[in-house]
Amino acid sequence: MGESKKRVGVLGLGRMGAALAGALLGAGHDVVVWNRSPLKAGPLLDRGARLAATPAEAADADVVLSCLSTYDTQQPVLDATELSGRTLVNLTSGTPEQARGVAKWASSQGIDYVDGVIMAVPQGIGTPGARILYSGSETAFDTQRAVLEVLGEPVFLGEDAGLAALYDLALLGIMWSTMGGYLHALALVGSEGVAPDRFTPMALNWLTAVGGFLPGIGAQVASGDYETEVSALDINAAGLAMLVETSRAQGIGATVPAALKELFDRAVASGHGAHAIASVIEEIR
Amino acid sequence: MGESKKRVGVLGLGRMGAALAGALLGAGHDVVVWNRSPLKAGPLLDRGARLAATPAEAADADVVLSCLSTYDTQQPVLDATELSGRTLVNLTSGTPEQARGVAKWASSQGIDYVDGVIMAVPQGIGTPGARILYSGSETAFDTQRAVLEVLGEPVFLGEDAGLAALYDLALLGIMWSTMGGYLHALALVGSEGVAPDRFTPMALNWLTAVGGFLPGIGAQVASGDYETEVSALDINAAGLAMLVETSRAQGIGATVPAALKELFDRAVASGHGAHAIASVIEEIR
Ligand SMILES: NC(=O)c1ccc[n+]([C@@H]2O[C@H](COP(=O)([O-])OP(=O)(O)OC[C@H]3O[C@@H](n4cnc5c(N)ncnc54)[C@H](OP(=O)(O)O)[C@@H]3O)[C@@H](O)[C@H]2O)c1
Ligand SMILES: NC(=O)c1ccc[n+]([C@@H]2O[C@H](COP(=O)([O-])OP(=O)(O)OC[C@H]3O[C@@H](n4cnc5c(N)ncnc54)[C@H](OP(=O)(O)O)[C@@H]3O)[C@@H](O)[C@H]2O)c1
Repeated sequence: MGESKKRVGVLGLGRMGAALAGALLGAGHDVVVWNRSPLKAGPLLDRGARLAATPAEAADADVVLSCLSTYDTQQPVLDATELSGRTLVNLTSGTPEQARGVAKWASSQGIDYVDGVIMAVPQGIGTPGARILYSGSETAFDTQRAVLEVLGEPVFLGEDAGLAALYDLALLGIMWSTMGGYLHALALVGSEGVAPDRFTPMALNWLTAVGGFLPGIGAQVASGDYETEVSALDINAAGLAMLVETSRAQGIGATVPAALKELFDRAVASGHGAHAIASVIEEIR
Repeated sequence: MGESKKRVGVLGLGRMGAALAGALLGAGHDVVVWNRSPLKAGPLLDRGARLAATPAEAADADVVLSCLSTYDTQQPVLDATELSGRTLVNLTSGTPEQARGVAKWASSQGIDYVDGVIMAVPQGIGTPGARILYSGSETAFDTQRAVLEVLGEPVFLGEDAGLAALYDLALLGIMWSTMGGYLHALALVGSEGVAPDRFTPMALNWLTAVGGFLPGIGAQVASGDYETEVSALDINAAGLAMLVETSRAQGIGATVPAALKELFDRAVASGHGAHAIASVIEEIR
């Protein structure tokens, strides 16, 4: 590391905060950690981290990462620090409005502020494929880039501090949707005795194919041209009706498929039956 | 082709039926096609297909593929054929109950019956990555395997004719969920002026990561052990609440995220807050 070794403060040692601190230690940084429950710091102290008794002590660093459960739990912790003239990288998940609120608070305190969202699980931190999206002060981002690269591939989105949170919710929405669809599928085939390990390889193979459909859908949304040689919305809406009907016939819940059906049916009712699935966005935005 | 050249009848020349007939012609088979609107056969006749004036004429073949919009439109077409002693491969989408119904009808007519579901778009037929799942008569499947391989990688699921339709709806549910999540994401980032071509590469990168989470979820569903070192359900339910709130704040609809939130909230209320996301299946099945 040599001269690039930095003092990094980490506020919050939950699953994610502990993973962040661990990756920084692995890269040779001088890591000062604080957590409400100090016992969680144990494994990190064994690896050379220093334990701060207060948030202010951990914040006496070149750059401070904050990763707490919510903005509501985070603000009192930030209020107990003195960060003026330093860089705060906020990795707690929240809404764009909340991120902009902290950015405003930071600016009023003379703090360089970067908002980040982690598109990985704790076990993925520091591995290839882990991405972290940032927005806010580009200068602060550039200055701290080497530290941030330890955690995952950093992507800077823009100076609006709310952008990272906006992308986060959009991407997490895809994750929750896909996981919800997968869990529903497991319940459906499970109702006929098909086990997850039999079904999952097919689901993964199919998910790869589905990923291949998305750029075409995105291009149709961008152009507003919903003509299709692939598959018409009405046949997909009919398919959703069959999914809801079959789920109920098999005795399983259909909350999410029914909501998708409602959305697709609205698009058909608006005249998009012969159009591509992309036209459903007209009923969302 | 030589001795493996077969006479194949194709009932239905919509987007998918035309793609099936085209692939069979490409492989050198003798293809006889029928469609309610015969004009759609034009491009296929140019490539050597023969046009049948009636479904019965097209059904005078070694194997007959049927691909119509729904089972309701298909049955009168099948009723107009004489398939006794032949093999019918039903590629029309429907429910397991509908597939079992046709299987029963086929059996009463002395028809060898295979139900298939196409996990590809018409443009994907005959290309690597296209998969078609089959269930029903394994003997008929094995006998026609060489013909079916022309259309896509054939996977036989079992003798219950309803199995292919069950897997189909389960897998399509994943597709509709993922596409719904993606369209919602496009609407959300679009509300701040982010265009699809900027967002989509990140969505695809993330979807690959999400695919990597599924086997772990499947294993938890199989074992019923929902302990997690990755991410707790309550933090994800809180995230869904933020997604719904932010969607509304940005002036976009939240039908599907709200349904997912309802499902996750129910699982939290049932005591799964500290468990893994996999525990949500307890509220579905
Ligand atoms: N886990 C993931 O896969 C993942 C992925 C991307 C983003 N994130 C985000 O990362 C953040 C942390 O998630 P996590 O998985 O690490 O959660 P977690 O394991 O539940 O940890 C929560 C952290 O918040 C602290 N905390 C909670 N209430 C507090 C309070 N009232 N005062 C002070 N500290 C409080 C906890 O301290 P104690 O130890 O004292 O309870 C702990 O440090 C969340 O915003 C999450 O959305 C997580
Ligand atoms: N497209 C896909 O991506 C895809 C993927 C997998 C599975 N599938 C399934 O494949 C099947 C066909 O889909 P598609 O995309 O080809 O649909 P399509 O382009 O809308 O074609 C519908 C077909 O059904 C016929 N048809 C409709 N009503 C009829 C009636 N009353 N009597 C006789 N024929 C009738 C049409 O004949 P006319 O030409 O005379 O209208 C046409 O041949 C569906 O079950 C679909 O779910 C499609």
